[in-house]
Amino acid sequence: MAKRDNISSSVVRRLPRYYRFLRELDAKGISRVSSGELAKRMSSTASQVRQDLNCFGEFGQQGIGYSVAQLKDEIAGILGISCGYPAILVGAGNIGTAIANQVAYEKRCFELVGIFDSDMRKVGTVISGITVSHTDEIERFCREKDVVTAIICVPKGAVEELADRLYGCGVRSFWNFSHFDIGMKYDDVTVENVHLSDSLMQLCFRIKRSREDN
Amino acid sequence: MAKRDNISSSVVRRLPRYYRFLRELDAKGISRVSSGELAKRMSSTASQVRQDLNCFGEFGQQGIGYSVAQLKDEIAGILGISCGYPAILVGAGNIGTAIANQVAYEKRCFELVGIFDSDMRKVGTVISGITVSHTDEIERFCREKDVVTAIICVPKGAVEELADRLYGCGVRSFWNFSHFDIGMKYDDVTVENVHLSDSLMQLCFRIKRSREDN
Repeated sequence: MAKRDNISSSVVRRLPRYYRFLRELDAKGISRVSSGELAKRMSSTASQVRQDLNCFGEFGQQGIGYSVAQLKDEIAGILGISCGYPAILVGAGNIGTAIANQVAYEKRCFELVGIFDSDMRKVGTVISGITVSHTDEIERFCREKDVVTAIICVPKGAVEELADRLYGCGVRSFWNFSHFDIGMKYDDVTVENVHLSDSLMQLCFRIKRSREDN
Repeated sequence: MAKRDNISSSVVRRLPRYYRFLRELDAKGISRVSSGELAKRMSSTASQVRQDLNCFGEFGQQGIGYSVAQLKDEIAGILGISCGYPAILVGAGNIGTAIANQVAYEKRCFELVGIFDSDMRKVGTVISGITVSHTDEIERFCREKDVVTAIICVPKGAVEELADRLYGCGVRSFWNFSHFDIGMKYDDVTVENVHLSDSLMQLCFRIKRSREDN
């Protein structure tokens, strides 16, 4: 039914947002939504929305819109939300703790199975029900649990050695909060970078430009 | 000198990354870089790099490349890195604490001048040298300090009222870590959203697809 192979990367970038909005509508008991309403929420156009959603099947019906539940489930399936890939998090500082809580809370996409830190003061503490282990345990743990993804919340200087170790025990995907470019080193890994300082610089640029315009 | 008015939003999205890379080169004492080297780092092509950088002046010289320091300073100027806009952060949980530390540490773009929380257990504690104040103090503080930007690290349910209050005292830009869509409500605000769960869903999709391909 779905024409999944044709989904472009720009559509993929928008899918999580569609999913979030549809989930909100579903939680409110709203069962149908028009392309116009979706467009307003996506800061897009109705025609763009129809084109995006057409990538993975024929859902909308002229005049009555899309079934919220059906569309939400289809997007969830495409994104792989119920996959529950085993993930570990390394670096239990403030950002690591916040991310661990979020991943454990969302219970989507990944199952957080381990948290690691090299600081003995953190080892043994509990975050989201998971006891923090020492980073020396990573290799043994990854092999036992068949870990798919590592969430990297350690300082930049510690990432390269850590990534080498994780790669060595089969981890091929990373959610990377550091500035070390993991994807530059290996060509068979999937890396999603969260560069908070890039986001901050973009905000700064946009404020500066809006002030220059006024 | 610079043709700044023509910079497209896709170039702007890449500028922070150029800036980070040039800063690294500068710190290593490297004074010149070719478009090919920049392209490799940007996962782009030399011709795309030349086109990007051509947007704001004529820097590169055939055969000898770009001056690292000059290009870095020019990009810093375009991004407004030295602007130091007064910013406050609201919500001193794990993510808020991590972000406060980062903003205070980077000393770029924004100057963090206040941190607020509604939890009395957090009020009075010190993060990055700043004493956390109660959210009741926000209005008085924003007016006194002429706050430009608010960093929103509170739960989604608390954002709408908070955004209304901040808007009421003149704040027109937001670095938003919540899922509440601030930009939907006001049309004269600048919002940079950090949607961590969208990033997580995209990683999940990419892992799923790479496994299907293999």
